[in-house]
Amino acid sequence: MRLSKAFLPTLKETPADAQIASHRLMLRAGMVRQTSAGIYAWLPLGWRVLQRVEQIVREEQDAAGAQEILMPTIQTADLWRQSGRYDAYGPEMLRLRDRHDREMLYGPTNEEMVTEIFRGYARSYRDLPRNLYHIQWKFRDEVRPRFGVMRGREFLMKDAYSFDLDYAGAQASYRRMFVAYLRTFARMGLKAIPMRAATGPIGGNLSHEFVVLAETGESQVFLHRDLLDFDVLRAAPDYEGDLSSVVDFWTGRYAATDEEHDEAAWGAIPEGRRVSARGIEVGHIFYFGTKYSAAMDLKVPGPDGALVEPEMGSYGIGVSRLVGALIEANHDEAGIKWPDAVAPFAAAVLNLKQGDAACDALCERLHAALAPACLYDDRAERAGVKFADADLMGHPWQAIVGPRGAAAGKVELKRRATGERQEVSFEDAVARVRETGAG
Amino acid sequence: MRLSKAFLPTLKETPADAQIASHRLMLRAGMVRQTSAGIYAWLPLGWRVLQRVEQIVREEQDAAGAQEILMPTIQTADLWRQSGRYDAYGPEMLRLRDRHDREMLYGPTNEEMVTEIFRGYARSYRDLPRNLYHIQWKFRDEVRPRFGVMRGREFLMKDAYSFDLDYAGAQASYRRMFVAYLRTFARMGLKAIPMRAATGPIGGNLSHEFVVLAETGESQVFLHRDLLDFDVLRAAPDYEGDLSSVVDFWTGRYAATDEEHDEAAWGAIPEGRRVSARGIEVGHIFYFGTKYSAAMDLKVPGPDGALVEPEMGSYGIGVSRLVGALIEANHDEAGIKWPDAVAPFAAAVLNLKQGDAACDALCERLHAALAPACLYDDRAERAGVKFADADLMGHPWQAIVGPRGAAAGKVELKRRATGERQEVSFEDAVARVRETGAG
Repeated sequence: MRLSKAFLPTLKETPADAQIASHRLMLRAGMVRQTSAGIYAWLPLGWRVLQRVEQIVREEQDAAGAQEILMPTIQTADLWRQSGRYDAYGPEMLRLRDRHDREMLYGPTNEEMVTEIFRGYARSYRDLPRNLYHIQWKFRDEVRPRFGVMRGREFLMKDAYSFDLDYAGAQASYRRMFVAYLRTFARMGLKAIPMRAATGPIGGNLSHEFVVLAETGESQVFLHRDLLDFDVLRAAPDYEGDLSSVVDFWTGRYAATDEEHDEAAWGAIPEGRRVSARGIEVGHIFYFGTKYSAAMDLKVPGPDGALVEPEMGSYGIGVSRLVGALIEANHDEAGIKWPDAVAPFAAAVLNLKQGDAACDALCERLHAALAPACLYDDRAERAGVKFADADLMGHPWQAIVGPRGAAAGKVELKRRATGERQEVSFEDAVARVRETGAG
Repeated sequence: MRLSKAFLPTLKETPADAQIASHRLMLRAGMVRQTSAGIYAWLPLGWRVLQRVEQIVREEQDAAGAQEILMPTIQTADLWRQSGRYDAYGPEMLRLRDRHDREMLYGPTNEEMVTEIFRGYARSYRDLPRNLYHIQWKFRDEVRPRFGVMRGREFLMKDAYSFDLDYAGAQASYRRMFVAYLRTFARMGLKAIPMRAATGPIGGNLSHEFVVLAETGESQVFLHRDLLDFDVLRAAPDYEGDLSSVVDFWTGRYAATDEEHDEAAWGAIPEGRRVSARGIEVGHIFYFGTKYSAAMDLKVPGPDGALVEPEMGSYGIGVSRLVGALIEANHDEAGIKWPDAVAPFAAAVLNLKQGDAACDALCERLHAALAPACLYDDRAERAGVKFADADLMGHPWQAIVGPRGAAAGKVELKRRATGERQEVSFEDAVARVRETGAG
């Protein structure tokens, strides 16, 4: 893509009302634009990242055996009356009336709706287990939305819902999502730690938050260093088999948010293995048994013919929030440093002398070889502007072409994450970018 | 995917309230489930089709130089007051108030919002032309929603918006979308005919509807047979060049909806070249000049320094509606007949004797070779049930494995569109399915 023709506007000024790094950088890099309080439009740079994040989430859900559906954003109040949550849910629920004066709402979550859908089709225990997920926009009418997409009102969430015949099955479903979540965040280059959590308004008695570590994170967390050292992606999980040992590794070592922190348990860890860090919640999983199946009359005949209320769990990932978390975990003063796996473009080609025949020709060749994951800065701008915009937008690679190098067929290749620079041939530049699989 | 573990529920009964073929078949095939009047959840089979349709739309928009963004569903009323449409828009607009009692709405379209976004960044004529599009859920509160996803209240639309410096540029943008639309529908195996249309509430003075031909279509259309004979995909368009000759071919021959029909012009066509058919509107493009830029104060300095109000157009495709239109154009009494390009699965493997060692082994091999676009019907069901469900769900290919064939290593391959059947080897079955690129 040629920057001269793209809609990739950057801002020089730091927006005054943006309090955290990701919010500042997303506005400055032209990733999003606020259209109302806590509601954002995703511009091309942000939209590319959001799609890549969403795709990784999708692939790991599919690998774990969850099946994708798409539930609508607008729900009827009647559905929520069946679970008793319509009145219980506070002012964060966006309530509305349609032209026939029927009470509706913009879904903040989908336990009720998915239970109703499953109830419509499940005929026997042979229809279990199932795990249905969707990736859909939700609305929570926060009283004071802030921190950009980290705490917006309209936000993109992946929510999965499992249905099992019994407790053992439900625990197995929970473990599959537990492991899928570890892999999802690891693939994005994030260190995510599951932490035992309170279940809150979803209900139930077993729940974990997944907290991503970032120096500028929103809350304090405490964990055993073993959890940091573990390589999640070392082996592919067997989702058909027993995942207890993997889950036990994680749940058997100390990890707690500030609210759940236990000084005594923490003190029992050898000092050198204690890690205290800042974190950002990006996922939350719940087992809540028959809370919704009982309330909403979801029953299927079991193997012995007796009716069974399926055991359920729900599993959320804040997809749009993750984009903010990724920036909190990967940035410096100059801008964003995208991990390869979620970068909007693998590389930017910076032409330092637009109009110079050798520069233009080499840049065109690079752009063609690295398409479609390449952004060619072909604007009639000073080198300094191009450097600053590339650092701000955070492309993993910058291929810098000046007149002296171009005459010798050389490219200066800069790795954004480390700042490392190397003068290389055209072929080596293309090969280096490609081998990281970025963009 | 194994049908025994999938969430692909089919219904034997024809739903009583479904009046048209696509609505009936989408419910019976388990593609969608109604969750409120005119609001649907997309189940895995439907969701796969919707994603494939969306991806073709996206690829053709990108090829034509449009850039993808994502605007939110909830908008402020203030934005629509700037254009004067807040009061003008009727009860189809879903209006609501947030917890701070601010007037908001669920976007039925996005002219205002995209103009506001573009206004926020455009600094000079060098920022033109641009075409921004998104694929997002919209809401129109139809008084009597019906015909399933063909006339739902919450529906998925692709809407693009072009910004040009002058009339000539705006016409070139219009032609790019015109050609992109022809290709989009042709890639899905549809015959889509552009027809001159009234502009309605969007405003402006140039507009075309794209109408897909289907025997069970909603309205009568009239066209010159030349338009049917033209092979849209024969040559790739040059979007950088002048597309006038292509557009002139289409606009120079008679094509009209019932409302715009002109008996005299129609009568002037040689009788053998007159086609009267049923059609379904699936896209609509508009040129409306400076209507929104003037109303919303979008101006940029032109090359001579004088302020210019950009000329705009908007371009919609009903993405969820297209799924219904595809079925209207491709079905028979037994069910759906998916075109290869949008099929949810390329093939279904039908095991006629589950538990027979040779059948099971051959089916497993087929399933593995054709994954992930293969659905393996491994249920303990009678052959008749499997045949009926495969015909209903409409997979382009059925690979039928019975004990006699399996013992000889043979597969019966059925082409759903034609009913043609052939006994072939494992290798030929895999090759035939793959070469159609289905699923």
